[in-house]
Amino acid sequence: MSKGKVVLAYSGGLDTSCILVWLKEQGYDVITYLANIGQDEDFEAARKKAESLGAKKVFIEDLRTEFVEDFIWPAVQANAVYEDRYLLGTAVARPCIARRQVEIARREGAQYVSHGATGKGNDQIRFELTCYALYPEVKVSFMDANLMHISECVPLCVFQSRAPADLYLMTKNPEDSPNVQDVLEIEFKKGVPVKVTNMNDGISKNTALDVFSYLNEIGGKHGVGRIDIVENRFIGMKSRGIYETPGGTVLLKAHLDIETFTMDKEVRRIKQGLGIKFSELVYNGFWYSPECNFVRHCIAKSQENVEGKVQLSVLKGQVYILGRESPKSLYNEELVSMDVQGDYDPCDASGFIRINAVRLREHHRLQGLSSTKQ
Amino acid sequence: MSKGKVVLAYSGGLDTSCILVWLKEQGYDVITYLANIGQDEDFEAARKKAESLGAKKVFIEDLRTEFVEDFIWPAVQANAVYEDRYLLGTAVARPCIARRQVEIARREGAQYVSHGATGKGNDQIRFELTCYALYPEVKVSFMDANLMHISECVPLCVFQSRAPADLYLMTKNPEDSPNVQDVLEIEFKKGVPVKVTNMNDGISKNTALDVFSYLNEIGGKHGVGRIDIVENRFIGMKSRGIYETPGGTVLLKAHLDIETFTMDKEVRRIKQGLGIKFSELVYNGFWYSPECNFVRHCIAKSQENVEGKVQLSVLKGQVYILGRESPKSLYNEELVSMDVQGDYDPCDASGFIRINAVRLREHHRLQGLSSTKQ
Amino acid sequence: MSKGKVVLAYSGGLDTSCILVWLKEQGYDVITYLANIGQDEDFEAARKKAESLGAKKVFIEDLRTEFVEDFIWPAVQANAVYEDRYLLGTAVARPCIARRQVEIARREGAQYVSHGATGKGNDQIRFELTCYALYPEVKVSFMDANLMHISECVPLCVFQSRAPADLYLMTKNPEDSPNVQDVLEIEFKKGVPVKVTNMNDGISKNTALDVFSYLNEIGGKHGVGRIDIVENRFIGMKSRGIYETPGGTVLLKAHLDIETFTMDKEVRRIKQGLGIKFSELVYNGFWYSPECNFVRHCIAKSQENVEGKVQLSVLKGQVYILGRESPKSLYNEELVSMDVQGDYDPCDASGFIRINAVRLREHHRLQGLSSTKQ
Amino acid sequence: MSKGKVVLAYSGGLDTSCILVWLKEQGYDVITYLANIGQDEDFEAARKKAESLGAKKVFIEDLRTEFVEDFIWPAVQANAVYEDRYLLGTAVARPCIARRQVEIARREGAQYVSHGATGKGNDQIRFELTCYALYPEVKVSFMDANLMHISECVPLCVFQSRAPADLYLMTKNPEDSPNVQDVLEIEFKKGVPVKVTNMNDGISKNTALDVFSYLNEIGGKHGVGRIDIVENRFIGMKSRGIYETPGGTVLLKAHLDIETFTMDKEVRRIKQGLGIKFSELVYNGFWYSPECNFVRHCIAKSQENVEGKVQLSVLKGQVYILGRESPKSLYNEELVSMDVQGDYDPCDASGFIRINAVRLREHHRLQGLSSTKQ
Repeated sequence: MSKGKVVLAYSGGLDTSCILVWLKEQGYDVITYLANIGQDEDFEAARKKAESLGAKKVFIEDLRTEFVEDFIWPAVQANAVYEDRYLLGTAVARPCIARRQVEIARREGAQYVSHGATGKGNDQIRFELTCYALYPEVKVSFMDANLMHISECVPLCVFQSRAPADLYLMTKNPEDSPNVQDVLEIEFKKGVPVKVTNMNDGISKNTALDVFSYLNEIGGKHGVGRIDIVENRFIGMKSRGIYETPGGTVLLKAHLDIETFTMDKEVRRIKQGLGIKFSELVYNGFWYSPECNFVRHCIAKSQENVEGKVQLSVLKGQVYILGRESPKSLYNEELVSMDVQGDYDPCDASGFIRINAVRLREHHRLQGLSSTKQ
Repeated sequence: MSKGKVVLAYSGGLDTSCILVWLKEQGYDVITYLANIGQDEDFEAARKKAESLGAKKVFIEDLRTEFVEDFIWPAVQANAVYEDRYLLGTAVARPCIARRQVEIARREGAQYVSHGATGKGNDQIRFELTCYALYPEVKVSFMDANLMHISECVPLCVFQSRAPADLYLMTKNPEDSPNVQDVLEIEFKKGVPVKVTNMNDGISKNTALDVFSYLNEIGGKHGVGRIDIVENRFIGMKSRGIYETPGGTVLLKAHLDIETFTMDKEVRRIKQGLGIKFSELVYNGFWYSPECNFVRHCIAKSQENVEGKVQLSVLKGQVYILGRESPKSLYNEELVSMDVQGDYDPCDASGFIRINAVRLREHHRLQGLSSTKQ
Repeated sequence: MSKGKVVLAYSGGLDTSCILVWLKEQGYDVITYLANIGQDEDFEAARKKAESLGAKKVFIEDLRTEFVEDFIWPAVQANAVYEDRYLLGTAVARPCIARRQVEIARREGAQYVSHGATGKGNDQIRFELTCYALYPEVKVSFMDANLMHISECVPLCVFQSRAPADLYLMTKNPEDSPNVQDVLEIEFKKGVPVKVTNMNDGISKNTALDVFSYLNEIGGKHGVGRIDIVENRFIGMKSRGIYETPGGTVLLKAHLDIETFTMDKEVRRIKQGLGIKFSELVYNGFWYSPECNFVRHCIAKSQENVEGKVQLSVLKGQVYILGRESPKSLYNEELVSMDVQGDYDPCDASGFIRINAVRLREHHRLQGLSSTKQ
Repeated sequence: MSKGKVVLAYSGGLDTSCILVWLKEQGYDVITYLANIGQDEDFEAARKKAESLGAKKVFIEDLRTEFVEDFIWPAVQANAVYEDRYLLGTAVARPCIARRQVEIARREGAQYVSHGATGKGNDQIRFELTCYALYPEVKVSFMDANLMHISECVPLCVFQSRAPADLYLMTKNPEDSPNVQDVLEIEFKKGVPVKVTNMNDGISKNTALDVFSYLNEIGGKHGVGRIDIVENRFIGMKSRGIYETPGGTVLLKAHLDIETFTMDKEVRRIKQGLGIKFSELVYNGFWYSPECNFVRHCIAKSQENVEGKVQLSVLKGQVYILGRESPKSLYNEELVSMDVQGDYDPCDASGFIRINAVRLREHHRLQGLSSTKQ
């Protein structure tokens, strides 16, 4: 007699295969689920293995488009970077994978979900919080090489040992990358890339998945987006992470540029704070929380006029912005130019400065002259 | 009969030479002042020119060390970046230059200071706010090629026209830069670099000015720190800026790394907000304001344990962190490792997650199942 | 021959009457405009006076409903309080008054608008920024006794001289106010009051203007909402302000209560920051700015579930919350109760605490025992 | 044979007496510890009870002065209010009590600490996080009627049932409180009260404990500081709380006033954000965390010039600020007055406004006229 159905996030690897067998032996009907978010994987081999190990059903789900559209695009809009450096590749994949797992569990009438994430990783938290939020049941297993980037936890002596070269799967070593740059033109609408064109050869992509995959390809070819960092995990520990996020890095730079070009500076200042909040929430596993919903809504609102084209070159691990244009630009050439008068009257500037100085002069008068050298 | 003394920030160039002559003709005693903050300049030629044009006194002041120690170092501690990209090279130079000008004016009994900054630039604001704060009088002229970086305002069609190659003075074109990396080890104390060693050749520097100059040299050699951005000026306009900040870019990356390695994550989160505030204040000319004093104090406090060594390589416009070590590290290898028990008990993680999930489950229950796909 | 049309914000008082005459003498066609935002004023007398002084046209506009709905309600949603104390009564009136003035100017083909605000007040800034934002032309005059509150600038020695009793127009002296409380029930939808009922006598109001006017009446009767503060003006000076905001104070307390009751705590934390930003923007005259539009949009979004009833009593200058109920409440009685198990398992709490403590223990271990007494 | 020593936070009540007996029966040597933080308690009776139940040692510790100086004063400096209403009375008591308990445990060589706090309350978290931070061991019991305020958890139907009158121990019902106000003058140095004088009768207090106790007495006599709120607990639940904080409420109003009077407005804006952060940290139990240390340091720095006297009246539940004076005031009477020229030139204001308007005009031009009514 079955103890019930369990949906297991299955990778085809040793860990989750063991979990599969163990769950079966415990008397559960095991449904395996493998999400395709762009990782390099033999999905059919995994299916056969799962079946041979006794899975009642096997789901292999192509989530690539919804991963890019529903999870990566909001991160691009947010300029999402955790602790100034990490582009949240793994962190945005977890809620995407867990969301489908929970949908399968509901549909199949399974009361259990299972995963193989270790207790110390952030991924356990991200997975489980998503599951609890969307369907109140249990444990989920994880796999890690995904479309957006590849991460490796390297619990080694952090100083002397550099990351081994073969750790990187998506990006060329910049030393070995081509000496000729690719020049790309990326077009944005509402803060999201809608088209990329390679100015060298005219190749062009215009679906979410194609655009992102192509940027991964070009970025990877030029060694863009490798980082070796020590990060602060949610649970309060520091750990070293080696990440590669080629397409995400190209997009971050391009989006920053078109956003600054088209968005009012004071709106951007508020939005910048919301973006930092978004990054923390996503890193910590709270994608499906009321506050993250709220922040995503506000950020999306801020992107309404983030529209236009950015030209950039990619070479030897670097992305260089070459120029930008937009129908919604706040950049007023006449205003900036020295020769043409817009609303700006140079005489007003002196009054502006003196009014700003009223407070400073009062303050320093009060402090006495001691502050001159402080 | 003299109308009084005026201290003119003099560059030796056409603009400020005209101002000198004009002030003299108006009946002022003109004292010229030229600050050496590391720019490429023939100071003696400027002195002679000023004297020949009728300056009563000529001051040529070597501010390089105080520029690095009093202005660049606090910016390094703050990870100061304006609007996610601009490293504030010009912005930190202004209060440094104006501070000395005001000191000279006080010492010489001059009631006027003068400068040649254009009305539309941020530099007029930065200069004048500093002067008003430290000594309540008027106008100051500016010069721009400084130690920290070189900026150019390019009021051209922003998309089609790329920045011309000869605009860059401090940095090699990455395409033409060496194919062999330099590996540097930078040592920090209290968030400030105290030593740099080139692991390739053993060259080592350990004074503030030497360290910074050497990082400019190595960074420049490898084409590090070029950006082409549209920025939001204080006065409410967008303008294009081409900047090169080689040493500052290397330091930003190294400091970010050692800071994340040694600072508690929640302290860092608060400090990150203060750093953004610092950047806005400095960009907008408020270095000598009570709030900037306050923020600098708080940031300096946060840096007490930011100590250790960072190894990095510089190549083709990029800076790669290779590793780090610190006597004050919060990185606990045992804790991160899977095999060793510290204070961390894997069983606690489940309780932790379930408690965090209480709120999420309540929320989604209230929302109904509609949120599954939101 | 006329120099053109000017719309003058006219109060009927001496200052703006002088402006009217002066403008006429300068050769302008003067259109006077008097906004009724609830102040105690003889509007017909003002009309006659304007006509007798030579106004070409006289507009007396009843803005009371749009003032409450378009300006006060968003402030209620934001819990708008400047510098922790000032409820922004005058500050929200300015953009309301200036908006209509600009509409009249457009409609009448007037290129000028005029006002009598003094240079040092915030009101000049609020008025003029609104005019510039909505229609790029000049000066506007102001009047101050309005529906939401009454302000007085008292430039006296701030310590010894207390505000004279007859300064207050809307509120009774609490010492002289009734000894019997009024108990009110206020109903909110989307963070905005839609109905108020007096539980003592059954009186009930349900339009925006009636609700707000009634709360002013009851609050005023009980001496609610008087403050005597020193505030920081936009322009960098401190000034003393005596304000009375009876209805606004009742609403602030009631809204705070229903909001905390119905809103997720992490959403509220983000919204709290946006509310502070909103208050600064409105105080400083930036109601019609892109950033204030953005912030209002985000705050309104946060109010979608702020719905329910609050009971409170008003007595001797105080507002006491008695209770609240909501169909959207996140308050789960079972969960809070000690006896009933919801998603909450007491055993999880220990794991939760220990995981939170991992970081603290590491930190204090590193610091040594010296921190025990810090 | 003993299993070891345990320090039990003992209240003399039923719950902790049961714990005492239970621990003894389990084979522990029990040391009881009772903190006097100002609550109304028969300490000697508790001592005898503990001894009679088999406590090996009994510690009764007078923490009143250190509670006020080390914990309440920093909260006063921060204007600490959680979720805009709760003055954190209980929250600041927990780390104070637990700190001494941990000191006793260290001194007595006890490896265990124990408490009787229920799993659902915030107090368990506050207690245990402090213990873990300062000494890595376990469980602690709590008592609640303390010097700063009295809290009651009322898990009743929140709307219909009002808080019963006898719930309040420190404050008179405002309806029954005197009809004659007390006028107090409170003197601050570095943001902390150093003296209080009653202007009615000349009574004066000048030690930390005396000042705070006296403010509790006067505030309580006039019914100041009662609130009935629904709050958001750390653990993710909402709960109703009835609090009375008479002295704390008087101090909050007085401190807000002297702070706004003496502090630069932009410093205050940054400090306000830090105060909100402080409140969240303290509410959530993180007093002894690196981030709370950091925030306290920054707030203390901001208070250096918060010095002067505030006069206020207390009547029928309300606190009215009457006036303030300070040797460090930034309030410049000449500057505020209309007749005297300081650094302020009215002509500058127009330039200031027009420069601020440049951005707004550009924005609305771009948006078209549609925004007029938005």
